Amino acid sequence: MKIVVSPDSFKGSLTATEAGQVIVRSIKEFDSTIETVLLPVADGGEGTLKPLISATEGKLVFLEVNDPIGRPIRVEYGILGDGETCVIEMAKASGLTLLLDHERNPLIASTFGTGELIRHALDEGYRKFVIGIGGSATNDGGTGMLRALGMKFLNEVGDEISQGAESLQSLHEIDATEFDLRIADSHFVIACDVDNPFIGPNGATAIFGPQKGVTPEQVESIDKNLANLANKIESLTGIALHDRPGAGAAGGLGGAFLAFFPVTLKPGIEVVLEAVNFHQQIEHADFIITGEGKSDLQTLSGKAPIGIASVAKAKNIPVVLISGFIAPDSILPLSTHFDLLVSVTNDSVSQQESIENAEHYLGIRTKETMFKLLQK
Amino acid sequence: MKIVVSPDSFKGSLTATEAGQVIVRSIKEFDSTIETVLLPVADGGEGTLKPLISATEGKLVFLEVNDPIGRPIRVEYGILGDGETCVIEMAKASGLTLLLDHERNPLIASTFGTGELIRHALDEGYRKFVIGIGGSATNDGGTGMLRALGMKFLNEVGDEISQGAESLQSLHEIDATEFDLRIADSHFVIACDVDNPFIGPNGATAIFGPQKGVTPEQVESIDKNLANLANKIESLTGIALHDRPGAGAAGGLGGAFLAFFPVTLKPGIEVVLEAVNFHQQIEHADFIITGEGKSDLQTLSGKAPIGIASVAKAKNIPVVLISGFIAPDSILPLSTHFDLLVSVTNDSVSQQESIENAEHYLGIRTKETMFKLLQK
Repeated sequence: MKIVVSPDSFKGSLTATEAGQVIVRSIKEFDSTIETVLLPVADGGEGTLKPLISATEGKLVFLEVNDPIGRPIRVEYGILGDGETCVIEMAKASGLTLLLDHERNPLIASTFGTGELIRHALDEGYRKFVIGIGGSATNDGGTGMLRALGMKFLNEVGDEISQGAESLQSLHEIDATEFDLRIADSHFVIACDVDNPFIGPNGATAIFGPQKGVTPEQVESIDKNLANLANKIESLTGIALHDRPGAGAAGGLGGAFLAFFPVTLKPGIEVVLEAVNFHQQIEHADFIITGEGKSDLQTLSGKAPIGIASVAKAKNIPVVLISGFIAPDSILPLSTHFDLLVSVTNDSVSQQESIENAEHYLGIRTKETMFKLLQK
Repeated sequence: MKIVVSPDSFKGSLTATEAGQVIVRSIKEFDSTIETVLLPVADGGEGTLKPLISATEGKLVFLEVNDPIGRPIRVEYGILGDGETCVIEMAKASGLTLLLDHERNPLIASTFGTGELIRHALDEGYRKFVIGIGGSATNDGGTGMLRALGMKFLNEVGDEISQGAESLQSLHEIDATEFDLRIADSHFVIACDVDNPFIGPNGATAIFGPQKGVTPEQVESIDKNLANLANKIESLTGIALHDRPGAGAAGGLGGAFLAFFPVTLKPGIEVVLEAVNFHQQIEHADFIITGEGKSDLQTLSGKAPIGIASVAKAKNIPVVLISGFIAPDSILPLSTHFDLLVSVTNDSVSQQESIENAEHYLGIRTKETMFKLLQK
């Protein structure tokens, strides 16, 4: 009997690794002869780094970079267990959660720190990259990242413009002569779940700007600035980002990758499942247990458990979903994807109790599930 | 103007690194020309690993080992920024917090996982070790760790005894012929704040056993088992652990280090300050800001802020303590160690508010402190 244990995090109570360890323990207590494979997962957004590194027995590297508004910040990137793939979460260096409300200001916020992370990894010799780009504080079209890697953004008199979205209005020329040559020798897989274009009514600024602090009055002018950037990039590379799907991800950082990096864009959960070698790890599994803090209709749009279910279905392996809470209106659509739905919260355990004693109740539900599946 | 920022964690709200970043940010907002050095610290107990690695820009290595009762668990150890010193927190693999209440059982709990961490680091080529031994679930005299490194514990008929404190009663002979030779080529600094002996009324079992699940009735028999172990170790090595101060740390793990490893035992905060190269980093500092979640009379007995104050005093550098809460009865004794005491909690901010909005209020207090110190 082999069970693969692949939960996402139980937000507010357990990390994916912790949740997985509780489930593994409970399985072993039920029957210590059962083989378990612990592969915590994530959806490719913020918080994806640690479970990937833990699942593959990799490493985390700590260093100081610039945060979105230029302050020093201690952050980490990871090396997968293969010893050669570098995992970078852009939100660690350039994320919205690094800023207090009044500090949010896409006019100046920069992806420079993300570029510093990439440069450090290149210096260390890495050439294979997985990049998660969710949760950015920036709207700079990725120019900060490109600057950290040697590119120059010049105004009409040949001086470098300052960082952020505002100064892109005076961008006259891009000088790529000192752009890091090692990029061309590398490969980048970008975990990206949005297909918004660089500019326009469905672009980076109009859609994602407001949550980063772009005011309704600023949308038009910043979008114009990004259009100027897209024009200059097209002159230099021949690549038109303007309407390119995915170019609008992370305040246009997606576009910078598409124009200047050897990249593949993929849905986050696919990137994660590939990184942990999921397809191979579930071979000969009798079933898979996944889960998350709260399952609802959003789960259906590309969250980790659904990604797992679709890989498992192709191999005819049953999947059990054990979540802290399952929203009633999602039970029916979820049942078409999972073979068994288990909610930690029930008539006798409130949501609050299940969060406060997450380990305890998740352990109980796991053992109940084992009885249900194996003793009937 | 140079300010060294060295908080411990604000338990319940901010890690040491997060607290330090809030303080650095606030200083920069007050005056961006001030040079800041961010060196988050810890007291050498549980939770020491991450700040050390973050402060020195080191690495974390993830792997799977056995937890105290033999279940697989994903844990990490660290490599300091010097690239050669390995930091291991024994509680990660063999700690009490890994077990549910009903799982606590020092009769069988083992330090095997801690030995696996050391073995992995030896395999990776590391020979310099810093080991934090607080928070153990074990009372096995370090025999589990020694087994993971090749030592054999045999009964009268030459079979290996099982793990934990109970089976030590049938220990007849220790076979060290396959003990890992690389240990002798290494050096181990043990962060240890207790000087309890291996056995007796002040020993590992009598003093620390009960919190790990040793019942009053079991104390005597387990202590006898450890005495048997100490006798066998003395026969083999000539080293008598019985009354040796520190040998009783971490259920006797301290003794195993003292008998078989090239070790130095030091107070936790000293180990931490050496690891982050604190003495050198504060040269030419105008002042130091430290802090913790709650300062009280316990702070005076070797917690991180006191360790910092004593190093700073020797160099005549003023130290400011900014803590989430300062217990009224500790204000007087604390003032003899610090040049300024600042409590985040005050008449208008309750303890709960200061915990729930820790970043916000810590930032405000830092700025107020800067005004007080520099604008008067």
